[in-house]
Amino acid sequence: MTPSNLSTKGGVRAAVRDVPAYPFTPVDVPVKLDQNENPYDFPAELKAEALRRMAAKDWNRYPDLHADTLRDAIARYEGWDTQGVVVTPGSNVLIKLLTELAGIDQTVLVTDPTFGVYTLEAALLGAKLVRVSLNPDFSLPVAGLLGAIEREEAGVLYIAQPHAPTGHIDARADVEKVVAAAEARGWVTVLDEAYHQYSGSDYRDLVRAGSNTLSLRTFSKAWGLAGVRVGYVLAGPELAQNIQKLVSAFNVNLLTQAALEVALEQPEYVQERVQEGLRERERVLAALQGHPTCEAMPSQANFFLLRTPDASAAYKHLLERGIVVRRQDKLHLLQGCLRVAIGTPAENDALIAALNDLP
Amino acid sequence: MTPSNLSTKGGVRAAVRDVPAYPFTPVDVPVKLDQNENPYDFPAELKAEALRRMAAKDWNRYPDLHADTLRDAIARYEGWDTQGVVVTPGSNVLIKLLTELAGIDQTVLVTDPTFGVYTLEAALLGAKLVRVSLNPDFSLPVAGLLGAIEREEAGVLYIAQPHAPTGHIDARADVEKVVAAAEARGWVTVLDEAYHQYSGSDYRDLVRAGSNTLSLRTFSKAWGLAGVRVGYVLAGPELAQNIQKLVSAFNVNLLTQAALEVALEQPEYVQERVQEGLRERERVLAALQGHPTCEAMPSQANFFLLRTPDASAAYKHLLERGIVVRRQDKLHLLQGCLRVAIGTPAENDALIAALNDLP
Repeated sequence: MTPSNLSTKGGVRAAVRDVPAYPFTPVDVPVKLDQNENPYDFPAELKAEALRRMAAKDWNRYPDLHADTLRDAIARYEGWDTQGVVVTPGSNVLIKLLTELAGIDQTVLVTDPTFGVYTLEAALLGAKLVRVSLNPDFSLPVAGLLGAIEREEAGVLYIAQPHAPTGHIDARADVEKVVAAAEARGWVTVLDEAYHQYSGSDYRDLVRAGSNTLSLRTFSKAWGLAGVRVGYVLAGPELAQNIQKLVSAFNVNLLTQAALEVALEQPEYVQERVQEGLRERERVLAALQGHPTCEAMPSQANFFLLRTPDASAAYKHLLERGIVVRRQDKLHLLQGCLRVAIGTPAENDALIAALNDLP
Repeated sequence: MTPSNLSTKGGVRAAVRDVPAYPFTPVDVPVKLDQNENPYDFPAELKAEALRRMAAKDWNRYPDLHADTLRDAIARYEGWDTQGVVVTPGSNVLIKLLTELAGIDQTVLVTDPTFGVYTLEAALLGAKLVRVSLNPDFSLPVAGLLGAIEREEAGVLYIAQPHAPTGHIDARADVEKVVAAAEARGWVTVLDEAYHQYSGSDYRDLVRAGSNTLSLRTFSKAWGLAGVRVGYVLAGPELAQNIQKLVSAFNVNLLTQAALEVALEQPEYVQERVQEGLRERERVLAALQGHPTCEAMPSQANFFLLRTPDASAAYKHLLERGIVVRRQDKLHLLQGCLRVAIGTPAENDALIAALNDLP
């Protein structure tokens, strides 16, 4: 630190300086089960059509300001009003914007553990972060959340269904109870439904019934388009308009729009892949039943937690066999846990074999 | 407002509610001179190569976390350290992140008039906005800026060179004086060089000499890739690392990365187009010299201001002739002004003819 820095206030905010740089290190191995991706590429014929549409566009021209054509297509697919749809390059961008909307100098309320982006943006943007521990069975801590909703200044509440990183899905009545309390106290409630195709759950009705509740969805999981980066909000028109103000103009580029238009015109592949994902998830979980040292936990998503006696050793063991998963063992309640995505049948076979081989 | 909203604090922040929704209405006419775009598409052979690379990628896989390959390519092109490069989908995203970095609960210092995104993000994110009027000849108000730098709590200072929306470029000594004062007081200084290829100016040396000063650059103007949406920062490694923390993970998608890789491998087309743009700008300005009612102002960018007796009438007159420009007449110092981009020679001919025809 130079003397001039010492003598001034302001400049780079302490909240940003204090956050460590994101520690992700890419690992190049054949079996990638660390990012909860769909294991299959966008179908070849759809990819070819998307590329044809990209070729026909003028790349020197700005895309439409708010991606209106894409918002229309999403609205049709979801049975929603276009005015209630907001799209950005990835749903993690929306988490930033939602923290801008109602978290800065206010509160971000989450379960513990939870998806790391909620807490990261709260720290970066200067929100008061309030964490309520999940119950030991990973279910929603209803009483704890109701208490925090009552006690804290209203901000943003995140509820992921299915929950990440546990894959747990809650009783609908519990979610409804928390959302109703949050609505009554003016909280913005985010129902993060990134994995809802795998659980069959759908909270659009709660969003419709409220005015400050929204559903956050993504094309990065079931749709198999993580590389194209699109996430979206379904909300009421007034809430959506306020979120839209925070979206940088021209945020979804021409290339992305072309790819998504094609996907939304021919979405049939998604359901087929989800079905295979569900069959494979149950097959893997069944195969790991009775493992001598590891416990594979039930999940309603396209990943599951594996509790191991030594997460570091298990992680390395898998890596040596060409399989990368995600360590989650430093998180509250998740001692020894790895997060493992469901891959192709062959990848899952490799996983099962490697785990059966774990000392 | 429902009674429950009245009885609560927090929720959607007043700063967001108070900002009006962005008023841009797209206009579909043959001659688009309203967004300062390059009038030519990305060269056909480069586009074809970019599409081939996109086809070869797995769209179901997340891109690299921080677009490292693209950052490397930009660093080579700019003669910069990769650790000092940050890329996002459009430089307007970086303006948001820079306001997050050093503006929230602090200060955003700008000239008046200035690029609207600086002031919009300041309003949305809760920064104290301090405006210093440009001099009447559009030059940098050095004394006023030095006073504000001294007086206000340090935050973010934006200096655009060339200035938008005036197209003015300042004496280098004036810019240096302001930047030196801002560095000494801990301000983050953004030298917005979106149009620098058209002015031939380059402030990388000032960025190298400082620790809190950065250059903001874009592929949307001279590079002719507005539809692909990429902007970047050149900064010192420590400042860049703090900005990078604020960038949403996987923010630049696979498609965008492929397009930019190709552009950076074969950047020769940019200089050719800039040269034509400069010739055309001078031709248009010369042709409008001595116009009976309008004054075309000198510019160092790919656009210029046209002062008209009645901006609304002139705007409509052009629109009826198939030409769209941007009204700027509501801005401080810019009474009667339209902002007009330089187009292709044929588009510029149409503009000149239409203006000569203005009653």
